[in-house]
Amino acid sequence: MKPAKEIQFPVLSTIEKRWSPRAFSDKLIETEKINRLFEAARWAPSAFNAQPWRFVYATKDHSDAYDKIAQGLNPWNQKWAAKAPLLVFVLAKKTFDHNGKPNAYAWYDAGQAAAYLSLQATEMDLYLHQMAGIEPDVLRNVLEIGEDYDIVAGMAIGYLGDAATLPDDLREREHAAPTRKPHSELVSRNDWTL
Amino acid sequence: MKPAKEIQFPVLSTIEKRWSPRAFSDKLIETEKINRLFEAARWAPSAFNAQPWRFVYATKDHSDAYDKIAQGLNPWNQKWAAKAPLLVFVLAKKTFDHNGKPNAYAWYDAGQAAAYLSLQATEMDLYLHQMAGIEPDVLRNVLEIGEDYDIVAGMAIGYLGDAATLPDDLREREHAAPTRKPHSELVSRNDWTL
Repeated sequence: MKPAKEIQFPVLSTIEKRWSPRAFSDKLIETEKINRLFEAARWAPSAFNAQPWRFVYATKDHSDAYDKIAQGLNPWNQKWAAKAPLLVFVLAKKTFDHNGKPNAYAWYDAGQAAAYLSLQATEMDLYLHQMAGIEPDVLRNVLEIGEDYDIVAGMAIGYLGDAATLPDDLREREHAAPTRKPHSELVSRNDWTL
Repeated sequence: MKPAKEIQFPVLSTIEKRWSPRAFSDKLIETEKINRLFEAARWAPSAFNAQPWRFVYATKDHSDAYDKIAQGLNPWNQKWAAKAPLLVFVLAKKTFDHNGKPNAYAWYDAGQAAAYLSLQATEMDLYLHQMAGIEPDVLRNVLEIGEDYDIVAGMAIGYLGDAATLPDDLREREHAAPTRKPHSELVSRNDWTL
């Protein structure tokens, strides 16, 4: 079991429950649930309602597509993440549809959509681990993704698995308590004190 | 009333309920609820658990601090957002604490924290409107914020107010139905088709 978060003020149950495992069950994710994940992301807010987030995904039962997309993970993440039943990459459209100008909020808003997706996952008993350790150039080549999209992050998604299946170093992390900076280092009232 | 979203697959009630009003009630937000907003943000995930998000805020009852921070909004947003009981700016630390190198995920992860905050707000019957229309240089000067932080977005937060108090053009937007792109333009399965 993951040790509990040290919650200081009550928050949404999905926020309290969410964490990022590396051991996933082999159980496939129901198509309806996959649709609900992307529906949640879809309703995130964005600057000018530009909705710059994009998702490309494959499920473990479609092994050709899955193995192709898994090449976008770096070798270290491939070892554990390419076992998850659902593998997703988050992309961000770098320009606005309406005028072609750069969208400075592309990554920020993609982050918001990913956050909605992650809480929707938690609500459905799914777990999700986002990864910065990716190979954007490889994925861009393999899937022929145009330059107007940044390839931002990977996501391994599935039901919780057995940490005993992980190598020693990863198993230890699976049982580590989640930690965060105190409010005093993150939030400043009335003036800037950080 | 805001027209309902056209939800295609069931999502979290907070996601379904959330929208971004411009008319806020004068009612002040309880301190406990403000703490819960930032606590929700605090538990967002981030690359290397760097937690690059920062928040600076003021409440309407502390008018000196509030008016100072409100200078960070552009004139158009000041007209309506500087009436909200809680005004927040989201910042992103551009470098990692552990090695001083640039954090490419600073904005993405700040977006995730903002998204958690926004759903926590919804859960507590608060509404939130994020703004890209800000004056980062002004806020940086006024609050003496160092160059290591990007000033990313503003947030007006409060209980729902009466749209009749808004100017005509804004009142119309308050009653417009929320719209999103279809899944087919946002999500790609097995291959890149967007």
